[in-house]
Amino acid sequence: MLYLIGLGLADEKDITVKGLEIVKRAERVYLEAYTAILLIEKNQLEAFYGRPVIIADRELVETGSDDILADADKVDVAFLVVGDPFSATTHADLVIRARELSIPTQSIPNASILTSIGTTGLQLYNFGQTVSMVFFLPSWRPASFYDRIKENVSIGLHTLVLLDIKVKEQSLENLARGRKIYEPPRFMTVAQCADQMLEVEEEKAEGVYGKESLAVGVARVGSSDQSIAVGTLEQLKSADLGKPLHSLILLGKRVHDLEREFLKPFAIDVASFESIWKRDYNH
Amino acid sequence: MLYLIGLGLADEKDITVKGLEIVKRAERVYLEAYTAILLIEKNQLEAFYGRPVIIADRELVETGSDDILADADKVDVAFLVVGDPFSATTHADLVIRARELSIPTQSIPNASILTSIGTTGLQLYNFGQTVSMVFFLPSWRPASFYDRIKENVSIGLHTLVLLDIKVKEQSLENLARGRKIYEPPRFMTVAQCADQMLEVEEEKAEGVYGKESLAVGVARVGSSDQSIAVGTLEQLKSADLGKPLHSLILLGKRVHDLEREFLKPFAIDVASFESIWKRDYNH
Repeated sequence: MLYLIGLGLADEKDITVKGLEIVKRAERVYLEAYTAILLIEKNQLEAFYGRPVIIADRELVETGSDDILADADKVDVAFLVVGDPFSATTHADLVIRARELSIPTQSIPNASILTSIGTTGLQLYNFGQTVSMVFFLPSWRPASFYDRIKENVSIGLHTLVLLDIKVKEQSLENLARGRKIYEPPRFMTVAQCADQMLEVEEEKAEGVYGKESLAVGVARVGSSDQSIAVGTLEQLKSADLGKPLHSLILLGKRVHDLEREFLKPFAIDVASFESIWKRDYNH
Repeated sequence: MLYLIGLGLADEKDITVKGLEIVKRAERVYLEAYTAILLIEKNQLEAFYGRPVIIADRELVETGSDDILADADKVDVAFLVVGDPFSATTHADLVIRARELSIPTQSIPNASILTSIGTTGLQLYNFGQTVSMVFFLPSWRPASFYDRIKENVSIGLHTLVLLDIKVKEQSLENLARGRKIYEPPRFMTVAQCADQMLEVEEEKAEGVYGKESLAVGVARVGSSDQSIAVGTLEQLKSADLGKPLHSLILLGKRVHDLEREFLKPFAIDVASFESIWKRDYNH
């Protein structure tokens, strides 16, 4: 059996009891480590499980999946995914490949960033589609997120923006020369996301959002060290939410007073939060 | 400290290791038992925790929250919620009340039906807002879900429909006479939901969806007994997915071939699934 096991968001104890039992008895344990990270190191996981953990990078999952699946028709293989195995990143391709090999699969769900942002008090019923924000390069500034946010905004819905992480990336030079030297990992901050969003709005000028649009920055959701900051995109451009992982929520106009009340203690500046909410939201 | 602890979806072992540690040491343990249920009984939870569990019905949470919060500034109180504490049902009001009493709170996220439906292979990025479907009565057939589905459909997004449950409800007669006699619990099925959806479409006739719209019925998501059935709304009207809890996903037009490939083994009728997909979707 191939088990896809969600690890939740923060540390080794966010795995479910059921997931942990499977990890302890599985023949091999893989950790998908390129689309999200826990806030702890691999050796802490191994110490907690009492088991070695094999890092599954993008290369192994996308081109070496048969190694992961080897013998999984006879023995149990655990494939660990930060968050939930089918949420922010879907591992549907791995399951389809397992099916082709007649390997049964089971998924053990867990908390995902897609729902854990409920901790901001924002109603998940009022979220539209989720978008991703990648690190802009001088010559590559993909703005497809803008049209999707526009769709959400047009019907008053909140938008969760998931922020890029770069793990085990090669520089163009090292890539060209075939040198397996990797850059230090990078994680987009709420401030960088707000900045890129405003840059694209300035360029497209469709008024989907602006400097005074309210947004919620979150960091390390699900950990005891979780941080929330509410402000305008302009204010968030200089907000420091500390260590990764960060996400950003652009508020839709379809808001409730309960949401305002819940968010208020997290406002960067309470006066502007209240006045902009009153002026632009909940009409 | 007030801990809001997600239990996940299926059984006692879907709690996280962190959540279980808190339950074992908390002074009092409440179980919110009116918006969702686990697939097991309360005594199984108590046996697993080695602790008594107090059932928190709607009345206690909405009007007796000060009993739940009593002394929580000095001792730990665990408030257990099926799924995730802030997802399908948000307990923001309880947190706000705790804040007013200067009681610190922490939430322990877990799997929610909002994300666990990723197990169908549908991309969560392509979901719009979630809607709820209540049991229709002869004189009460609330159809506000229809306009929200219309918004999702207009931009090609999938819609998750959460289905009503009736737990500890009184008949109108018993309510009027003040008799605390409760009706047996009822859980809406995928078939009932498809039926009510088609009834409302027939009435409104805006063509938001129809008998040949594709949808996915799911039951007992996250359990080893999980069931998935894919078909038209007309086919799903007579589908039997067994025991609760059920949910339904109306497919948007913005679909991918990977989603089709993943869903195909669950089709009620593969030929009609393939031909309708080809004719109406992914254009």
